[in-house]
Amino acid sequence: MASQYQIFLDEIAAELRPHFAKGKVADYIPALAAVPADRFAMAISSVDGDDCGVGDADTRFSVQSISKVFTLTLALKAMGGKLWERLGREPSGDPFNSLVQLEHEHGIPRNPYINAGALVVVDCLLDTYSDPKSAILEYVRDITGSDDIDFDSEVARSEAEWGYRNRALANFVKSFGNLHHDVDTVLDTYFHHCALAMSCRELAFAFEHLADGGVSRRLGREVTTAQQTKRINSLMLTCGLYDSVGNFAYRVGIPAKSGVGGGIAAVIPGKLSVCVYSPGLDDGGNSLVGTLALERFTAKTAISIF
Amino acid sequence: MASQYQIFLDEIAAELRPHFAKGKVADYIPALAAVPADRFAMAISSVDGDDCGVGDADTRFSVQSISKVFTLTLALKAMGGKLWERLGREPSGDPFNSLVQLEHEHGIPRNPYINAGALVVVDCLLDTYSDPKSAILEYVRDITGSDDIDFDSEVARSEAEWGYRNRALANFVKSFGNLHHDVDTVLDTYFHHCALAMSCRELAFAFEHLADGGVSRRLGREVTTAQQTKRINSLMLTCGLYDSVGNFAYRVGIPAKSGVGGGIAAVIPGKLSVCVYSPGLDDGGNSLVGTLALERFTAKTAISIF
Amino acid sequence: MASQYQIFLDEIAAELRPHFAKGKVADYIPALAAVPADRFAMAISSVDGDDCGVGDADTRFSVQSISKVFTLTLALKAMGGKLWERLGREPSGDPFNSLVQLEHEHGIPRNPYINAGALVVVDCLLDTYSDPKSAILEYVRDITGSDDIDFDSEVARSEAEWGYRNRALANFVKSFGNLHHDVDTVLDTYFHHCALAMSCRELAFAFEHLADGGVSRRLGREVTTAQQTKRINSLMLTCGLYDSVGNFAYRVGIPAKSGVGGGIAAVIPGKLSVCVYSPGLDDGGNSLVGTLALERFTAKTAISIF
Amino acid sequence: MASQYQIFLDEIAAELRPHFAKGKVADYIPALAAVPADRFAMAISSVDGDDCGVGDADTRFSVQSISKVFTLTLALKAMGGKLWERLGREPSGDPFNSLVQLEHEHGIPRNPYINAGALVVVDCLLDTYSDPKSAILEYVRDITGSDDIDFDSEVARSEAEWGYRNRALANFVKSFGNLHHDVDTVLDTYFHHCALAMSCRELAFAFEHLADGGVSRRLGREVTTAQQTKRINSLMLTCGLYDSVGNFAYRVGIPAKSGVGGGIAAVIPGKLSVCVYSPGLDDGGNSLVGTLALERFTAKTAISIF
Repeated sequence: MASQYQIFLDEIAAELRPHFAKGKVADYIPALAAVPADRFAMAISSVDGDDCGVGDADTRFSVQSISKVFTLTLALKAMGGKLWERLGREPSGDPFNSLVQLEHEHGIPRNPYINAGALVVVDCLLDTYSDPKSAILEYVRDITGSDDIDFDSEVARSEAEWGYRNRALANFVKSFGNLHHDVDTVLDTYFHHCALAMSCRELAFAFEHLADGGVSRRLGREVTTAQQTKRINSLMLTCGLYDSVGNFAYRVGIPAKSGVGGGIAAVIPGKLSVCVYSPGLDDGGNSLVGTLALERFTAKTAISIF
Repeated sequence: MASQYQIFLDEIAAELRPHFAKGKVADYIPALAAVPADRFAMAISSVDGDDCGVGDADTRFSVQSISKVFTLTLALKAMGGKLWERLGREPSGDPFNSLVQLEHEHGIPRNPYINAGALVVVDCLLDTYSDPKSAILEYVRDITGSDDIDFDSEVARSEAEWGYRNRALANFVKSFGNLHHDVDTVLDTYFHHCALAMSCRELAFAFEHLADGGVSRRLGREVTTAQQTKRINSLMLTCGLYDSVGNFAYRVGIPAKSGVGGGIAAVIPGKLSVCVYSPGLDDGGNSLVGTLALERFTAKTAISIF
Repeated sequence: MASQYQIFLDEIAAELRPHFAKGKVADYIPALAAVPADRFAMAISSVDGDDCGVGDADTRFSVQSISKVFTLTLALKAMGGKLWERLGREPSGDPFNSLVQLEHEHGIPRNPYINAGALVVVDCLLDTYSDPKSAILEYVRDITGSDDIDFDSEVARSEAEWGYRNRALANFVKSFGNLHHDVDTVLDTYFHHCALAMSCRELAFAFEHLADGGVSRRLGREVTTAQQTKRINSLMLTCGLYDSVGNFAYRVGIPAKSGVGGGIAAVIPGKLSVCVYSPGLDDGGNSLVGTLALERFTAKTAISIF
Repeated sequence: MASQYQIFLDEIAAELRPHFAKGKVADYIPALAAVPADRFAMAISSVDGDDCGVGDADTRFSVQSISKVFTLTLALKAMGGKLWERLGREPSGDPFNSLVQLEHEHGIPRNPYINAGALVVVDCLLDTYSDPKSAILEYVRDITGSDDIDFDSEVARSEAEWGYRNRALANFVKSFGNLHHDVDTVLDTYFHHCALAMSCRELAFAFEHLADGGVSRRLGREVTTAQQTKRINSLMLTCGLYDSVGNFAYRVGIPAKSGVGGGIAAVIPGKLSVCVYSPGLDDGGNSLVGTLALERFTAKTAISIF
């Protein structure tokens, strides 16, 4: 018998079908532009054991900025509060790849979820790990139980080839002394972690502990402390949706992190993690159908953090 | 016998006593600068009937920007979603009285909780109410049951006398056509609603329905719809603390609205409203001791929205 | 027999006739919007005694920002270098009525030729003159010999009625403490001096001394010192054309001050002053045909400062 | 017998001796930081044949941004007005290496004399010349008659090693599509042309034609057309001194281009070119003693363009 959550997912998929190809697939790199616009997937992992999905829930896609949650998690575990000496935690109010604020604020990125912030987080990981790319892979493989999760090397290569803006950001932060490692090494790690390929189901697993105070149901152990969990979630709510955080909080009202690949991973504290995928983006760079799906999900379930 | 919440409040007051006079009392108008720096008060109104307080919980102070929640509430009830045609709902990432973003965004304020946004909200109220000042008073008197809540006319006069920045904001918004009414009329209403004098206990009453899906326990009826409630709360979380929203969410993690008078009114959805008062401000313009008190409260009670 | 300059003016008027109604007449106040788009006038006053004109050279129009040269002159004569404690002398790189830079630079306007700067200059005049409006009139009447030059009261009234942006600027500067006098008094003087009505011939007279080291040929005496003259001219070149100074210097290459009324008054040091009028403005807010006319004039005469 | 200009130079050197080590030597790369702070040199090349100098007028130094005049000259000769499709000609009002304006203006640099603009000019040269570095050397060797002028390879290497900000600018402009060539190739050319080592006397020769309508007295032929000359000069006046153009025009009043190496090359149209060198910089990044020297020179000679 289908779980209640499964029923909701099926309803949402049916209701949104007419919208499936809406939005604009990211085309700043060829590897992303090639994705079929009408793909849709959604998966849930609840704290009380209900794992369900709809659509292409087992098809991997490019998680892009969603991976910033993984690097932030590793950095918080490694450095704790010292991370905030090199990084803010305020919404930027500017596009995710803006250099303006960075100039006014002397190379201290506003938060870990904009590109400049993630570059600093990656730089921090280079202090802790000899090979951060392997550390990131190891972390997501462990937490999801999928040993074959990997970087999409074609996407990583394409990011490196076309990543002038990120290269500008990295050199700019470096010019303020806020990257300690070699720019090319930081960028290589950054481009790879953006190119992580995961399915909705895997992402739901990877975020489930954030709905349960940091304890992974699947692993049966604490992944992040209660305080770390609360903070990762609060940063998603205030900074996770580029410059649409306010609008997303208003419409959907739960902590979430989006990626330009079309994925959004979200958390309803105490209840569940939910991940949606649809590659067409809205003007704010977030999955258009994905946002609709999450809006409907919180409306149907009437579970909200507010 | 003292309630559990009362015990927490007493502990917090005792623990924070050494910090009481810390921070910088707002001095941009003489009427605020005169307030004793070491005042402290805190009050709770829980959805299941526990009303408690500590310190000067019945002493009124200048609520300042906290009143923006009341005007937003009235405007949402009057206009619904049409309000957002003249106003954004994104965090500003700039100081509360900045004109920079307003120029780049052609007179559309980022959100209703920065000054420019509240001026537009007040302008909207002038479409609905012949006398918005009376309407505001009536609303807060009704919801708190305190018939003698009033504007502090000395503060209102002082705001008007020294309010060059707000006068600049109002004329600037008007120059973009986003104020429909006379600038002086809008400013008079704005300066008065900032000058509302209420106690912590009254503010806790006034916010209690936001913790209970919109239904006021005291009044026994719906004040805001479930959807309006969710949205007012989400806007507090993403925009309620000036340019410290991210930091506040990270440390405290609940929707709140602060005022430069030293008050912070906060909501823990499903549980309670809590209001704290201490006039010394931190660098972000929020009550320094008030933020500490709320941080301890969420730590002690272990109730968080994340 | 026609002077050589008269021949040039006649040629230019004939050549530009097909362009006469081009550009967009300023319409931010009704009094300016009513001006016929195809008016054209040009006048010269040379240091060796050649005064000539073409078109409506004796018809008065609203000089608008050109009057900023007169107030700057009066302020420099009254205060000397102390003026620069309250004012910069750098091009703004932003629109003439921008508030952005003013916020970043704490109420110190970039230069005396943007609106905020002129407001500060007017405020300075209020320290020196009990009635700056009369002082301005007296100055321009004296230097031109036209005793009936006056403010266009309809334009002044219209400016005051619609001047939300200038009112915003004045209050904003005041909020930083960089206006010492009452905002309304400063604005009244400002709106009047913008509303000065003069003809091209009168403007040419009023600028002639700036072409002759400060000595007025007509008056036979020094109006500004050699150093003041050099500095007023250099400020026109670097700051006199709103955010088109570079383009104007590139194309025309002489110090000039424009007004949104459609006038441009220019100086060729050592040679002459030249004033042109045509109300249609280009995208930069400068007279479109006026700029063309000056470009041709410097090409024909082959006299340039570069 | 000493020429009049020689007498002025000797006087200025004597008068400024007490100031010689003032200002702050550029230290962003080690190769520049090592220069003795008290060096001083000045040289003149007049259109009527007076070449004179004082101090270390034959000692070469790093011309840095002064070389932007050479690349602009080559690009104007090669492309004419088409250059301005990729580049503005307005003062920036922001620091020379700012990225802010570039973001707001979508990768079109404000003018050819800020770093981003010079990168675009260099990119244009790559369309015309197979080896722009050689073309630049050839041009300055020809115009000065000094066949051994060369790039200081130590400075070029140091620029490349520490040039994170320029690398950020180049990648940023590239991200907007306004660099057509490979970022590393553009930067290599850029870093080399900044590292050009020339003496004051050589720079005076190299700018002399700009004082004589484009005709080089030494070469006896036209280097730039009259129109190109006028335009290169006007761009120096409005954009040549970073964000101190207005102040420099006010105090000195002649077209000039400065470099962070401590050189300033200036032009008095119709009269002479003058170059000064003193490595200590003022807050605006221009040679402190160099600016004083030019200010005195224009005061003593009473020759000004205004």
